[in-house]
Amino acid sequence: MHAMPTLVIGNKLYSSWSMRPWLLMRQLGIAFDEILIPLDRPDTKARVLEHSPAGKVPILIDSDVTVWETLAIMEYVGDAYDAQVWPVDLKARAMARSVAAEMHAGFQGLRSTCPMNLGKKYARRDRGDAVAKDVARFSDIVRQARERFGQGGPFLFGEFSAADAMYAPLVTRLDTYSIALDTTTQAYVDAVLALPAFQEWRNAALTEAWIVDADEVDEEPIEVYRQAALRQGPGTHES
Amino acid sequence: MHAMPTLVIGNKLYSSWSMRPWLLMRQLGIAFDEILIPLDRPDTKARVLEHSPAGKVPILIDSDVTVWETLAIMEYVGDAYDAQVWPVDLKARAMARSVAAEMHAGFQGLRSTCPMNLGKKYARRDRGDAVAKDVARFSDIVRQARERFGQGGPFLFGEFSAADAMYAPLVTRLDTYSIALDTTTQAYVDAVLALPAFQEWRNAALTEAWIVDADEVDEEPIEVYRQAALRQGPGTHES
Ligand SMILES: N[C@@H](CCC(=O)N[C@@H](CS)C(=O)NCC(=O)O)C(=O)O
Ligand SMILES: N[C@@H](CCC(=O)N[C@@H](CS)C(=O)NCC(=O)O)C(=O)O
Repeated sequence: MHAMPTLVIGNKLYSSWSMRPWLLMRQLGIAFDEILIPLDRPDTKARVLEHSPAGKVPILIDSDVTVWETLAIMEYVGDAYDAQVWPVDLKARAMARSVAAEMHAGFQGLRSTCPMNLGKKYARRDRGDAVAKDVARFSDIVRQARERFGQGGPFLFGEFSAADAMYAPLVTRLDTYSIALDTTTQAYVDAVLALPAFQEWRNAALTEAWIVDADEVDEEPIEVYRQAALRQGPGTHES
Repeated sequence: MHAMPTLVIGNKLYSSWSMRPWLLMRQLGIAFDEILIPLDRPDTKARVLEHSPAGKVPILIDSDVTVWETLAIMEYVGDAYDAQVWPVDLKARAMARSVAAEMHAGFQGLRSTCPMNLGKKYARRDRGDAVAKDVARFSDIVRQARERFGQGGPFLFGEFSAADAMYAPLVTRLDTYSIALDTTTQAYVDAVLALPAFQEWRNAALTEAWIVDADEVDEEPIEVYRQAALRQGPGTHES
């Protein structure tokens, strides 16, 4: 038996990395406590370093085991909780891990031009070649995964898996920045946005008051979902 | 039973990502065929895309399964070959996966300033704050892993594991650029450089003639290990 683990995360409105293991564990029905450390504040780094030597969220603390880095947390959850983190079929699992790792170090165009921001929506417009290339690659992944392995449900490999959790923040960006998508990709985006665990995360995000300037693009939104927002100083963090 | 898998890699002299699964599989005694695609040539992208839709090496082809992304290949090897890719102990394994994932998207200072280049050695000199920060973090990882889990051998978690394979290209950079290290880190670097699998990779690298301009720093080397080198046009690839 496990004592309840603790997931250390950043702001729900902006922290794309934090959202990934949170969604996965919620969807898998693994109970956990949560410590939220607001990002880009004077004491952020010190507070994160109290939990992990790598100085970044998310961090999973499970009794005397500390795991950091999103992918490592996901593998740990599969390993220690014997949970169905990846697809059952070996081939599907191989592709799921490939595309998850591709997300881990890739999609820099979308990540830098279109920061995750659950509090706003922006109009559709051309966001440059790097974004277009990332969107094309993502649509390719969705099409190939769903064609080959998508029979059992609306997600990349049918049922929800760690691969979907890895791409969830990217999915929110496609929505936030009103990016044009083909039918298959749009259906997948809609399925992720409709996930109960995502709705729960997003509703909590919308109650947050912090503003992280580094993640706010200089553009008039077409919708603002948050009620209140408290200005704070500027800062930076990996998007 | 497995038919022999094929690992698709880049130039051994420069391709840091290719080296990782190659070393791991060699150390684990898993036989494989090899396809080498020279990087940064006019036909590189097309040749890589013949094997993987993500367009990057390394790629592992195992009968009808194709796996890309270094970390995914490593997990696949553990999964499909029932090989001891990660440490046996759950806690050690959690840390091994955390530091491996940290390498996957991190250490940008060392990676951009000190490209992997097994053909030369450069004099010790100040290489800036980003490099110093990465070296400090790496030394931290070595110290913590070895203190907590290093009893069974000279590697991060005692016996050689995927975590060592992930850091091997970084280890060669510390050597190539004559970076000053504390005793514990230096001993670890020496252990990795002495690995039979690394020696084999390096010897093969030194027979290659291609030059990738993007990975050659503008500085006089203090040693040149390659005999022959054939000039080619410039190009770029992720270091
Ligand atoms: N590669 C890491 C990325 C984690 C990351 O960049 N987290 C950001 C928040 S989304 C962070 O902790 N930033 C705080 C800082 O760098 O000080 C992972 O996979 O978990
Ligand atoms: N995140 C990838 C990185 C792979 C990578 O960047 N490979 C480089 C060679 S070391 C490459 O294929 N470059 C060719 C290109 O981008 O056209 C992994 O983990 O395998």
